[in-house]
Amino acid sequence: MGMRSHFCGQLTKANAEQTVTVCGWVNTRRDHGGVIFIDLRDKEGLVQVVFNPDAAKMFELAGSLRNEFCVKVIGRVSLRDAGLVNPKLATGEIEIVAQELEILNASVTPPFQLNEENLSETTRLTHRVLDLRRPQMQYNMKLRYKTAMAIRKFLDANDFIDIETPMLTKSTPEGARDYLVPSRVHDGQFFALPQSPQLFKQMLMVAGFDRYYQIVKCFRDEDLRADRQPEFTQVDIETSFMSESDIRSLFEGMIRGVFKEVLDIELANPFPVMSYADAMALYGSDKPDLRVPLQFTELTDVMKTVDFKVFNSAANLEDGRVVALRVPNGAELSRSEIDAYTQFVGIYGAKGLAYIKVNAIENGRDGLQSPIVKNIDDAALQTILERVKAQNGDIIFFGADRAKVVNDAIGALRIKIGHEKGHASNDWQPLWVVDFPMFEYDDEGKRWVACHHPFTAPKDGHEDHLSTNPGLCIAKAYDMVLNGWEIGGGSVRIHREEVQSKVFRALNINAEEAQEKFGFLLDALQYGAPPHGGIAFGLDRIVTMMAGAESIRDVIAFPKTQRAQCLLTQAPSPVDEKQLRELHIRLRNNPAQLAEVKRDES
Amino acid sequence: MGMRSHFCGQLTKANAEQTVTVCGWVNTRRDHGGVIFIDLRDKEGLVQVVFNPDAAKMFELAGSLRNEFCVKVIGRVSLRDAGLVNPKLATGEIEIVAQELEILNASVTPPFQLNEENLSETTRLTHRVLDLRRPQMQYNMKLRYKTAMAIRKFLDANDFIDIETPMLTKSTPEGARDYLVPSRVHDGQFFALPQSPQLFKQMLMVAGFDRYYQIVKCFRDEDLRADRQPEFTQVDIETSFMSESDIRSLFEGMIRGVFKEVLDIELANPFPVMSYADAMALYGSDKPDLRVPLQFTELTDVMKTVDFKVFNSAANLEDGRVVALRVPNGAELSRSEIDAYTQFVGIYGAKGLAYIKVNAIENGRDGLQSPIVKNIDDAALQTILERVKAQNGDIIFFGADRAKVVNDAIGALRIKIGHEKGHASNDWQPLWVVDFPMFEYDDEGKRWVACHHPFTAPKDGHEDHLSTNPGLCIAKAYDMVLNGWEIGGGSVRIHREEVQSKVFRALNINAEEAQEKFGFLLDALQYGAPPHGGIAFGLDRIVTMMAGAESIRDVIAFPKTQRAQCLLTQAPSPVDEKQLRELHIRLRNNPAQLAEVKRDES
Repeated sequence: MGMRSHFCGQLTKANAEQTVTVCGWVNTRRDHGGVIFIDLRDKEGLVQVVFNPDAAKMFELAGSLRNEFCVKVIGRVSLRDAGLVNPKLATGEIEIVAQELEILNASVTPPFQLNEENLSETTRLTHRVLDLRRPQMQYNMKLRYKTAMAIRKFLDANDFIDIETPMLTKSTPEGARDYLVPSRVHDGQFFALPQSPQLFKQMLMVAGFDRYYQIVKCFRDEDLRADRQPEFTQVDIETSFMSESDIRSLFEGMIRGVFKEVLDIELANPFPVMSYADAMALYGSDKPDLRVPLQFTELTDVMKTVDFKVFNSAANLEDGRVVALRVPNGAELSRSEIDAYTQFVGIYGAKGLAYIKVNAIENGRDGLQSPIVKNIDDAALQTILERVKAQNGDIIFFGADRAKVVNDAIGALRIKIGHEKGHASNDWQPLWVVDFPMFEYDDEGKRWVACHHPFTAPKDGHEDHLSTNPGLCIAKAYDMVLNGWEIGGGSVRIHREEVQSKVFRALNINAEEAQEKFGFLLDALQYGAPPHGGIAFGLDRIVTMMAGAESIRDVIAFPKTQRAQCLLTQAPSPVDEKQLRELHIRLRNNPAQLAEVKRDES
Repeated sequence: MGMRSHFCGQLTKANAEQTVTVCGWVNTRRDHGGVIFIDLRDKEGLVQVVFNPDAAKMFELAGSLRNEFCVKVIGRVSLRDAGLVNPKLATGEIEIVAQELEILNASVTPPFQLNEENLSETTRLTHRVLDLRRPQMQYNMKLRYKTAMAIRKFLDANDFIDIETPMLTKSTPEGARDYLVPSRVHDGQFFALPQSPQLFKQMLMVAGFDRYYQIVKCFRDEDLRADRQPEFTQVDIETSFMSESDIRSLFEGMIRGVFKEVLDIELANPFPVMSYADAMALYGSDKPDLRVPLQFTELTDVMKTVDFKVFNSAANLEDGRVVALRVPNGAELSRSEIDAYTQFVGIYGAKGLAYIKVNAIENGRDGLQSPIVKNIDDAALQTILERVKAQNGDIIFFGADRAKVVNDAIGALRIKIGHEKGHASNDWQPLWVVDFPMFEYDDEGKRWVACHHPFTAPKDGHEDHLSTNPGLCIAKAYDMVLNGWEIGGGSVRIHREEVQSKVFRALNINAEEAQEKFGFLLDALQYGAPPHGGIAFGLDRIVTMMAGAESIRDVIAFPKTQRAQCLLTQAPSPVDEKQLRELHIRLRNNPAQLAEVKRDES
């Protein structure tokens, strides 16, 4: 225990009359009735310490204590009188009557009080050391540790071993942008920080390690969104000789076990499984939040012939879609609420938000309230009401546009209105989404691109589509979704070199390019590569959800801002010219070289 | 278990008559008596599989098997006849009589057989995936995992939590060279990969986490030696409210526990403790290999006045030293052996290797055999023989030069001759080296530099030396040494801002520079920083020793060469011009810009 005999936050009635030594920080100080009280804080919590004036020298020293002073106290644990028990404090039944006080380190006045709320993110990240002292941040970091350790224990018990893969790797400009590291030894060459250990873990399978995992930093130099960081932590797993369903079964067991162990929460057993096609049809999303039961109703077919341009033009687009979203009790929505939702779907590109309020379905058209219903013929209207199973009190929203806009806009509306209007359950809804397409067509690049990554195996029997119609090819890929967040994803990998080569061809990567970028993988696959597959979980995101935090920055000790800066240490920063010289690089926009740069850029 | 019911290497007599499914690689194949035998290999070991010709189709398929084919076999476990038991194989009492064979993946002929020895490092690293299939490499990676997991369990039980610190950090050009990462968002600015999480872990202590650890990649862009890698793994630990001896006691307990758990080896309890001064005096090294009991005998004082220039000139140098190394039975060494040792110490800068063979000490000078003894007067000779406690049969070697040369040369000789000539024990000799100096004087830079790092606390009572004579200042620093390797090192840190500022001044770092480089630390120390300290262990090195491996590259799955290259993936490699543009850098030695570069360099 070092300098202390007990942690502040762990003292109880059982310690009464013991002499204890505690160390920690002055959380608050009160002077009351000629006595000084402090709440002393350590990582386990708070305890009240009392300084009586009869020990004059110590009392004087206690008088100099201010918030965040670091002190050591020796004292006797004393039961509080019944009337003075503080039920809000774990240690509220006792207090420490101080006998000795040592100020280990004074503190200047902190820029904010630890219990202040609504601090700006800039303040919090600039003074991160103080921010991390707050109980919520202490809890979050411990929760993160417990989660990671529960994962390690599960994997250990299931015969997985942690094998470290390199951080200084080869740049393969596919997918996201790499962080690059100039080589000093090899002039003009660069390492890349790994976006994931994907190829290394596959090579470990080929090397016969059978069951690998790693909790590992990965890097993507992308423009940051609220839930992204330049460096993020992945629970990276790979296994040989297991089928897709074996893998899914094992890892939903892992997540169930972690939630049970860390939060005492029971997740569904088994997790429901939904195809990508169904998820898109019913929820417009490949990561539906199943806490909201509202679903899309497909109307594209019937709207092709309806005499209402907004609907029929969308329905007749090659990539068009028309759907309805029925919201029970939505007929109560006010005009201004509907306006707000209309504005909301606009964020996702929707040009409007048509609706029908079902006031009295038994009255036919007269029982409906809607700006658009006059444009819809009786037969189509009848089909709509039947398909959505309309009931009095409903509002039916419509999305009609390119499928992507409809899915994004009405999908987001589904979740928003579901949570706002009491249609969401307040529980945990895990889900497997499976049967993803192998490829999607990139209209700009005029080529097929991999939905998951180019090492994903096609479903049995789908190999032939690789050369004939890649769009029909379904992958052995799976995402684990929880409450609308993708928390993990993986696939069975290609283990035969000839299939891998076919996939590269489907992706329009020619043999030379494949060899240059992935030669080591193609080479490895030739030596009896085993059937293998795996999954990667986003640890930051899982812990954010478990902590109920608003941002992944609240579960990372020293995060970057959305401008990819560390406000605490001021990284990134300029470096010495000598360092650049050693790395054989120069700044492009070095003011001294401006003329030359301009010539170069023109 | 996925596709298999059992691992090959775990089948025993207890499985006799069971039908099992195993997956793995063909390790060897023999055709004998019309029957095909293969040894099938998985991560747990080998098992013999028998294919009988009566199942004609399967037998034909088995006939196509070659080494490293990946297969699945269903068969019946059968006891071998007593005469056919293979005691060398864990599964040698049984074999599997195959009923079904599936070739999961064929293999081309590997470039080497897995049991080949003396493969070149280039071959091994180029074909690392196959190299890793070898039982020794499988063992090494598992040993590494077990070691790391034993460390995690110990730390978990002792209330430490793993907290991740950033990989993209601020460059502080102190000590080793940083790996830099250009920022895309911030033109002209760079992140650095961490050389260690030193400042972050100290900030976690200031933030009140109390007990932190991390098993984490660190980076140094140094010219590589045999036991160094650009990226290496550190077991990084920090704790608050513990004294130097508390910390040492806890972590020698950890290492003892790990050796016991992983290798069933009992290390000394407690570890011996030696001051830096004693270590240098007796062994010429701050990491003495105590398996070799031979010690230096100090002669500098007596040699100042001896009439033998080689000795007295060294003894009278300001930084000179003269020592003897007595080696029992060394009088037997041949002329050519002595020549070889003379050449060996030359590597460390020694200009020769004087010696005296003690053949018959009772005969005075006549009983000594030596090229130098004629130059040494009787009194000095007498002192030498008494000090080293010379006995018949000894050889006494001498080192006389600048202290550094003597320490390096005679220190290395001590270890070499000790191990070669039977003076070394074959066990594990742990040791704490303590009481390091805070600073050493850099003759080139004409300034004091930190021996450990500038955040190390001085011994109690040594603070005053900081401004008066830094050379007298002893640090609360400690290294853990095992068999002559430094496997861990740490210190109690400075927790008061005013002491930290004094140390910066002693290091000739002015206030402005200190603020720019370490402002966030100085700032953090002002808010009631707790007393804290820690240690970092080199995981690669510990596992290398535990595995009895020759190189740390044998305990790293995908290491770099000594030229900092990955031969498997060919990293580092050239990158696209587009990538460089996005990062606001250009190549200095881009051929197209050669003229301009030349102008610039001149």
